[in-house]
Amino acid sequence: MQTIALDDYNIYVGEIWEALQAFLDDCTYSQYFILVDENTKAHCLPLIHKYSSLKEATIIEIQSGEIHKNIHTCSFIWKALMEAKADRKALVINLGGGVIGDMGGFCASTYKRGIDFIQIPTTLLSDVDSSIGGKLGIDFAEVKNSVGVFNNPQAVFIDPIFLKTLPVRELRSGLAEIIKHGLIADATLWEKLKSIENLETVDWTSLLVPSLEIKKKVVEEDPFEYNIRKALNFGHTVGHAIESWALNSPDPLLHGEAIAAGMICETYLSTKILDLPNESAEEVSAYILKIYGKYLLQNEYFEDYLRLMKNDKKNENGQLNFTMLSNIGEAVINQSCESPLVKESLNYYIEL
Amino acid sequence: MQTIALDDYNIYVGEIWEALQAFLDDCTYSQYFILVDENTKAHCLPLIHKYSSLKEATIIEIQSGEIHKNIHTCSFIWKALMEAKADRKALVINLGGGVIGDMGGFCASTYKRGIDFIQIPTTLLSDVDSSIGGKLGIDFAEVKNSVGVFNNPQAVFIDPIFLKTLPVRELRSGLAEIIKHGLIADATLWEKLKSIENLETVDWTSLLVPSLEIKKKVVEEDPFEYNIRKALNFGHTVGHAIESWALNSPDPLLHGEAIAAGMICETYLSTKILDLPNESAEEVSAYILKIYGKYLLQNEYFEDYLRLMKNDKKNENGQLNFTMLSNIGEAVINQSCESPLVKESLNYYIEL
Repeated sequence: MQTIALDDYNIYVGEIWEALQAFLDDCTYSQYFILVDENTKAHCLPLIHKYSSLKEATIIEIQSGEIHKNIHTCSFIWKALMEAKADRKALVINLGGGVIGDMGGFCASTYKRGIDFIQIPTTLLSDVDSSIGGKLGIDFAEVKNSVGVFNNPQAVFIDPIFLKTLPVRELRSGLAEIIKHGLIADATLWEKLKSIENLETVDWTSLLVPSLEIKKKVVEEDPFEYNIRKALNFGHTVGHAIESWALNSPDPLLHGEAIAAGMICETYLSTKILDLPNESAEEVSAYILKIYGKYLLQNEYFEDYLRLMKNDKKNENGQLNFTMLSNIGEAVINQSCESPLVKESLNYYIEL
Repeated sequence: MQTIALDDYNIYVGEIWEALQAFLDDCTYSQYFILVDENTKAHCLPLIHKYSSLKEATIIEIQSGEIHKNIHTCSFIWKALMEAKADRKALVINLGGGVIGDMGGFCASTYKRGIDFIQIPTTLLSDVDSSIGGKLGIDFAEVKNSVGVFNNPQAVFIDPIFLKTLPVRELRSGLAEIIKHGLIADATLWEKLKSIENLETVDWTSLLVPSLEIKKKVVEEDPFEYNIRKALNFGHTVGHAIESWALNSPDPLLHGEAIAAGMICETYLSTKILDLPNESAEEVSAYILKIYGKYLLQNEYFEDYLRLMKNDKKNENGQLNFTMLSNIGEAVINQSCESPLVKESLNYYIEL
């Protein structure tokens, strides 16, 4: 097991069981709550339920899926805490993917103006995306993560054992954030990623640790995303719009799948705005397409995608805000471009 | 005008107009939103609408009343911000009483994970209660302020001019928090309060400044209410329960009216638990009854009141938590007592 120490909490990566036991032994919480969905209840809860302090924990079960990451589910969670008379010294344990972590963390951070929580992510995406940076929240009015807070957990416990129960599609989705970290900050990680042959036999700890170290460095330098943290938004301006749009379509996308498509489009924009070499863009596109295949972006919905991009909370003063690449492993924040060029990048994706 | 400087923002008390102008002149916000209800829209908005930077501000109007301080109104406010494409550099100006300040501050603190806001309280209660301490939130599942966050505004502007439009009943409600500050920390303020003859001719700035200084001292020492800040909860354990109960009755109470009744009950408890002299309790009861008259507490609803107290977020490990008085001007936190004694205190109130 490896420990990544942040300013005010630790992330444990690997075989987490002793660390989790030690954390619970040190605790003086009045009550324990474990937030699960039907999948993590079946596959993950048995693994952590064995701890003596958790035997009497109250289980709060919500339905899985991004579509439930909304204010109605928050109300359900707050009510469950209230009905169990959770006081300010209760602990919420979020056992699940990004939906559970983001929404459970938001509900804990706002219940009675904030109670403690820990994250036990169970998907690759949440391992790498939700465990650093304190971004918590829900989707609201069709816009992803548009209501939320910044707040840190007491600890994060990441164990690749949970990944064994995941479909390959989920692994692929999570991989997108690791790819992003390579592209924006670590050409060595990018080379390592290119050598992956089979997602089911990867040594995840060896990819997670460098990826988390990159995120740690960026987030500690700029916790509230005034500047350099925006680098982590690479792929996300276009990607979030595609994801939001697909949410209500018959063919919804996983977060990482949408970000993967977004990274291709924003890599194209980088060639136009920052003179990223065309060969680099081709290398990125080819690699991403090899892993993710191609999502059917449709010309007739371009205006919808743009409308969603314009609602993105990363924009300022009405301008679309992008992070782009000047080279593989180097990001430049606060790039803007006009709608026609964004449409051109969507067309580039379609024509690949 | 007097300025109370807190760690990270200023409170301006008196004639605020130049200070507000100076604040707005220094700003580089992308958009301005003013949250009002039908009353503050009619009576207060005209006074601040004259500033050139606010001429094009988007007005968000909600219905007045504690009953609207809920998650549905939050959704309405978040949607209004979203529809106006508010970005992270927008400013929310909360112009109104505690409902507007608490809920508007909560919505701003959670919209896109937090945008700036300022408070312009327009009631005596919000002048003294909501301008220091960063407590924001809404009522949820019948429990007051059970969902919220701690977060500070950029500035608070308190002008007694707004009090001139208030009914006497509202002034009386706000006075309860000033009385509380005298009782828990300042016997001199208590003596000053006892000399008030007519609420409509009081020099409010002279009462507000010492009251805010007490609150400032307590809150800066203990922002998250781990210890001494709990002193500010005097009167609130019983008072909140009475207020919550009355919310759905034909005879709802204003916050301060409920707290006034709560202070009488908790003063009685103080004589039993902390040996507060009986004469002091009689002095407090007589003064409060003179100002507030008597609210009809009913024996048959005692269990309801107790159930609501047990849901109070101030409790820990299932015990009712009180702040009590050892003397007038001296509070002791973390006092507990059993249900029969609490009922006795309710009976004491009834029999006064």
